[in-house]
Amino acid sequence: MSGSKPFNLSSLLAGCYDNIYIFTHVRPDGDAIGSSLALANALKTEHKNVEVFCPDVIPSRYSFLPGVETFQDSFIPKEGKGMAFILDCSDLRRLEYMGEKVLRLDRIVNIDHHVTNEKFGDLNLIDSSAASTGEIIYRILQNDYELNYEISLCLYVAISSDTGSFKYENTTPQTMEIAARLLEKGVNPFYVSQKIFDEYPVSTIFLLRDALGTLQFDETGKIAWMAVDDALLRKRQANSAELDGFVNYVKNIESVEVGIFFHHTDFEETKVGFRSKTVDIASVAHALGGGGHPRAAGCTIKGRPEEVVKIVLQSVSRLISKG
Amino acid sequence: MSGSKPFNLSSLLAGCYDNIYIFTHVRPDGDAIGSSLALANALKTEHKNVEVFCPDVIPSRYSFLPGVETFQDSFIPKEGKGMAFILDCSDLRRLEYMGEKVLRLDRIVNIDHHVTNEKFGDLNLIDSSAASTGEIIYRILQNDYELNYEISLCLYVAISSDTGSFKYENTTPQTMEIAARLLEKGVNPFYVSQKIFDEYPVSTIFLLRDALGTLQFDETGKIAWMAVDDALLRKRQANSAELDGFVNYVKNIESVEVGIFFHHTDFEETKVGFRSKTVDIASVAHALGGGGHPRAAGCTIKGRPEEVVKIVLQSVSRLISKG
Repeated sequence: MSGSKPFNLSSLLAGCYDNIYIFTHVRPDGDAIGSSLALANALKTEHKNVEVFCPDVIPSRYSFLPGVETFQDSFIPKEGKGMAFILDCSDLRRLEYMGEKVLRLDRIVNIDHHVTNEKFGDLNLIDSSAASTGEIIYRILQNDYELNYEISLCLYVAISSDTGSFKYENTTPQTMEIAARLLEKGVNPFYVSQKIFDEYPVSTIFLLRDALGTLQFDETGKIAWMAVDDALLRKRQANSAELDGFVNYVKNIESVEVGIFFHHTDFEETKVGFRSKTVDIASVAHALGGGGHPRAAGCTIKGRPEEVVKIVLQSVSRLISKG
Repeated sequence: MSGSKPFNLSSLLAGCYDNIYIFTHVRPDGDAIGSSLALANALKTEHKNVEVFCPDVIPSRYSFLPGVETFQDSFIPKEGKGMAFILDCSDLRRLEYMGEKVLRLDRIVNIDHHVTNEKFGDLNLIDSSAASTGEIIYRILQNDYELNYEISLCLYVAISSDTGSFKYENTTPQTMEIAARLLEKGVNPFYVSQKIFDEYPVSTIFLLRDALGTLQFDETGKIAWMAVDDALLRKRQANSAELDGFVNYVKNIESVEVGIFFHHTDFEETKVGFRSKTVDIASVAHALGGGGHPRAAGCTIKGRPEEVVKIVLQSVSRLISKG
């Protein structure tokens, strides 16, 4: 799909579907949630049966979004013809236990901006030049729908979330133009960013303090890492989603080339997050059974914590000494 | 000034000035530095004698900006007619020891976005609806100058800096439009934000850990504070500029209404930073001899640390119980 070739949503929906189902991925982020709710809010102006699904809990920071309370985490198709919109999912495995049922629906529209998208839909609207799925939804909706405040708010959350408030390299002039149009609809950028980026429960600040207490560096100063375990999460009455972004505190140190965050779980399994300034850290994550982007990647490794740390540090050291 | 009424810089400069001096304020931020360098880089394409001045050290995080090495911290007017551009200064006191000499120049052009600007110039280009002085400079330059990459980079730093990467309420559709135009010139938003927002020396992370160790709450949970002293800065081999933004860690806690940061200096003087989510904290700062905005303010108080903390907490408690 390209931005200049308008896609007509109304004509697609004229195919008399009884039910419209919108799905997004496990561990939903602002783009997943915002895009889905923007599309749902728009479609609801003309259709009765529009529902949104996610195989996971919606993080509380998004609770201010209009319609967020309608997300369902189990999917039972209703009587009649059903159309599915799958948003921000590079493949159907990202819908976990819902994926198989979705495949049985009458029509699947796959809307995504990931370059790795597997084009599993009957219709695939994939634009990897878009910074977020929200940008694609904006372009689709603006042809046929009045973007009211509620829809604009959802889209703004999607777009600002997936660009880290317009900081990431995926931010383009088009991203900024769309943001301008959404602000014109009354979106308050301070309110949104306070909600989705800045606010955290009090447990998070204690968790951060504890995590910073574990900061270590390799002998070059180019690799640094922090580590927490489930026992600490319990002590701080925190949940693991609160650890999101902690790895950036490590990466943001001037001397550091690769920042690593280890979350050792109770099950002898460690979740590893990587952030890099220049080297392609996705190669390391991939070799260790994970994946991601060149500058932000992750993996999950079985084994005793100290062994996992050793293996990961060796891999990253090799990458840096090669680069 | 309004965005729709173009101001002609070329005709102003046709007045045959021998020297063009650009000044900005003490404790310069990204807007001060970026605006000044954008204007300097543009004017240098046509004029030989363009110089930039600031009565302070330029923070190292801005060292990537083209021309930043030409900033001078002492001003001796040269022979011939001199024109001064004063950028981002609500009054001439913000030029400290340079202010008096500037007044003796032949023409003063005052360009600013602060609503409190004292209009001290022969020509005053004040637009308090602009999110940054960089926005005003952009509008001035775009009429007469080709915005090359270097100028665009300086302007982008000015604009993203004064909006906290497009998070603050001052961010308007026009801000976003201008940012779009600057990205088109090749500015890399990731590179810029990494430099001006995200990177810090290793001392900062240890300082943050220590500061988080001092976190306290009042009995309502609505007021929280942290405190560091000069002894800690010495221990961490850190400078006080590294404390910038620490107060936000306190404010960002969900339950917190007002976050406070105390920096007790060696001279029985405490620098107090306030951040508020809704109440007008500037009133407290003002009553204590300081100033600022409704949501971000500060003051400096003489006295023993524990007394200062007590006085400040009482004032903030009263404000919150009134609100």
